[in-house]
Amino acid sequence: MAVNPPALTAPLPVPGFKVGTASCGVKSPDLKGKRTDLTIIAADVECHAAATFTQNRLRAACVDLGEQAVNAHGAEIRAIVANSGNANAGTGIREEEWARMMITSAASALDVDAHQILSASTGVIGTPFPIERIQNGIREAAACVSDWQDAAHAIRTTDTFAKWTSRRFGDFTITGIAKGSGMIHPNMATMLCFIATDAPLARQQLQSILQQVVGKSFNSISVDGDTSTNDTVYLLSSGLGLGHQPLPDTSAFEAALTELCIELAQMIVRDGEGVSKFVTLNIEGAATEDEARHIGRTIAISPLVKTAFAGSDANWGRILAAAGNAGIAFDANKISLKCDDIVMMQNGNLHPDYCDEAGMAVFARPEFTITLNIGMGDASATVWTGDLTHEYITINAEYRT
Amino acid sequence: MAVNPPALTAPLPVPGFKVGTASCGVKSPDLKGKRTDLTIIAADVECHAAATFTQNRLRAACVDLGEQAVNAHGAEIRAIVANSGNANAGTGIREEEWARMMITSAASALDVDAHQILSASTGVIGTPFPIERIQNGIREAAACVSDWQDAAHAIRTTDTFAKWTSRRFGDFTITGIAKGSGMIHPNMATMLCFIATDAPLARQQLQSILQQVVGKSFNSISVDGDTSTNDTVYLLSSGLGLGHQPLPDTSAFEAALTELCIELAQMIVRDGEGVSKFVTLNIEGAATEDEARHIGRTIAISPLVKTAFAGSDANWGRILAAAGNAGIAFDANKISLKCDDIVMMQNGNLHPDYCDEAGMAVFARPEFTITLNIGMGDASATVWTGDLTHEYITINAEYRT
Repeated sequence: MAVNPPALTAPLPVPGFKVGTASCGVKSPDLKGKRTDLTIIAADVECHAAATFTQNRLRAACVDLGEQAVNAHGAEIRAIVANSGNANAGTGIREEEWARMMITSAASALDVDAHQILSASTGVIGTPFPIERIQNGIREAAACVSDWQDAAHAIRTTDTFAKWTSRRFGDFTITGIAKGSGMIHPNMATMLCFIATDAPLARQQLQSILQQVVGKSFNSISVDGDTSTNDTVYLLSSGLGLGHQPLPDTSAFEAALTELCIELAQMIVRDGEGVSKFVTLNIEGAATEDEARHIGRTIAISPLVKTAFAGSDANWGRILAAAGNAGIAFDANKISLKCDDIVMMQNGNLHPDYCDEAGMAVFARPEFTITLNIGMGDASATVWTGDLTHEYITINAEYRT
Repeated sequence: MAVNPPALTAPLPVPGFKVGTASCGVKSPDLKGKRTDLTIIAADVECHAAATFTQNRLRAACVDLGEQAVNAHGAEIRAIVANSGNANAGTGIREEEWARMMITSAASALDVDAHQILSASTGVIGTPFPIERIQNGIREAAACVSDWQDAAHAIRTTDTFAKWTSRRFGDFTITGIAKGSGMIHPNMATMLCFIATDAPLARQQLQSILQQVVGKSFNSISVDGDTSTNDTVYLLSSGLGLGHQPLPDTSAFEAALTELCIELAQMIVRDGEGVSKFVTLNIEGAATEDEARHIGRTIAISPLVKTAFAGSDANWGRILAAAGNAGIAFDANKISLKCDDIVMMQNGNLHPDYCDEAGMAVFARPEFTITLNIGMGDASATVWTGDLTHEYITINAEYRT
């Protein structure tokens, strides 16, 4: 039950890329043929690549291998191979071997070198990885007769809708797909995003732009702050037509990529487990953007705030208290807080016109915006989050996912 | 519905202290006479005092004033005055004035100086403080005809049972009372603990011992990581009989105080909102005790871990992933994990004898212990937590508390 899932138009194909999917039965052999769970995104040429990965200290082997490949061979990448249904994380002595086998199988099926492959896995942790079923799926998917929409379906775990979007940037295209039910997922299934473009950017530009953009998009959402072991964003640029000369001005590309990633990130929140409210947190008046974002993320993970959202209870003292837990100084005499157009506090004081009924009416909306000004400076950030509901407990406590 | 609440024996009186309570109707005038909500702990002599306070950056004025009093007059303290039902936090321009009025009223009623009073408030945030009703209650409570058990009842907000305990240490007594439903409370009502002793310790000793002990007790519990604006622990020593000469060996006192605080801290977890499981997290093999505790606290706030507890689901991959989110390095080849006597991982590998049924049987118990060794050193720490249940959502989303 997602909150206002967008009506998506078909993703745009990206020159230089083709897509394949397969149904391997990763999670269980019974599921073979019933749902797709393997994806290949293959490029006709060597791509420049950028990536960001989970900050969890227990990273899956595929994350380590992906980071090594981007660092050592980031101008020669030919494909991404990804499976859902099993994260190949916490699987012990064979974890790295299995991750390497997945890569070498994809390289062999696509007739490229193993160092040109990036991989990602998502699903249950601590369960042996069914490498043979996955190798069979890789051979099938390598025919690359699917499209981006198929790929967006194949990387899902418990997502209730597939997530994709595209942007045009001058003569070029950017298409991205993502999966995830927020930062929190059954069995730590993963937030994944794969983005392809034919825009002529060099890898150094790609990496710095991606880091900026991920900060403003995927790192600005939270369902409840459980970062997975496998989170990965890959960005590939085929550079078809114009090659990989550094662009003198990357601002238009960065703007388009930011829009694309924010749209995908918001889809993940809208599809967050049990989420019934979509809430935008604008944090203003901070000394730095990082501090503003940290306050927003701290509010976004507070169970007391999230249950108040769920209960349509304008219990705004919980928002202030959660903000105080970010460990960042406030000017108590300058704090202002409003929800949509209803002002609760202004310049550190209870607003004389505020009444609880007006606050309750805003909190009852399926989408609303909270704006908190902490009076310390001019920097701001926006974070998107959902509420914490009975359905969330049911999903994560009552069924083994 | 608390988890195995202890059968408490009567708290021991402490030489030099007397206790008073009153019913003011703080939360609502209708409640006057129906439940007590004001407490005075008064000493016959000037006490040495130590304290620890919330780390929340939005602290209530009473916390600031309490800290100033302990720092400036920590050898002359005569009383603690505390109310439940309203935290006097986030109340704007009159917050400090109201907090001072509460202190001066208590000083006047007890015929001591205002700088000799410590205060604490707990309850709803952002609601004007009913100072006149509280002043009336202070005058009534100042007769000091109650006992510690009455005081433990009067500081409760949504606690389902009153929390107290005593220890003997040589010829001396330590008695403490606490309130809280974990780190999380309706409307950020507060974790409070007041401890009195007649042991002959000087304030410098008291403060350093209290900080050590709070780290191992109250700072080692979590219901869901929402630190309140008003958390306060006060420790008063009357030094009756032997004065306040520094004790040459404080280890016996520290051991008794540690036992007392752990017992009270565990009571708070057992009474955590919606908690149906009491879980002990032993983190071993860390480089430092602080790192071990940080990992334990990170596991303890993970909604995925806590819903797995609630569902009696031995979904132990969630525990590893949550531990990885603490940002502390692990030796992946040395990780061991067990729950009670069932081993899931040993030396970084899936344990060959582990079966899910055995794990499930442990997770179905109302109390169990998880032991995680991260293979980096010899330090360890213990953290206590509960699960995240439908009842928690009901308490915090469906009723305004």
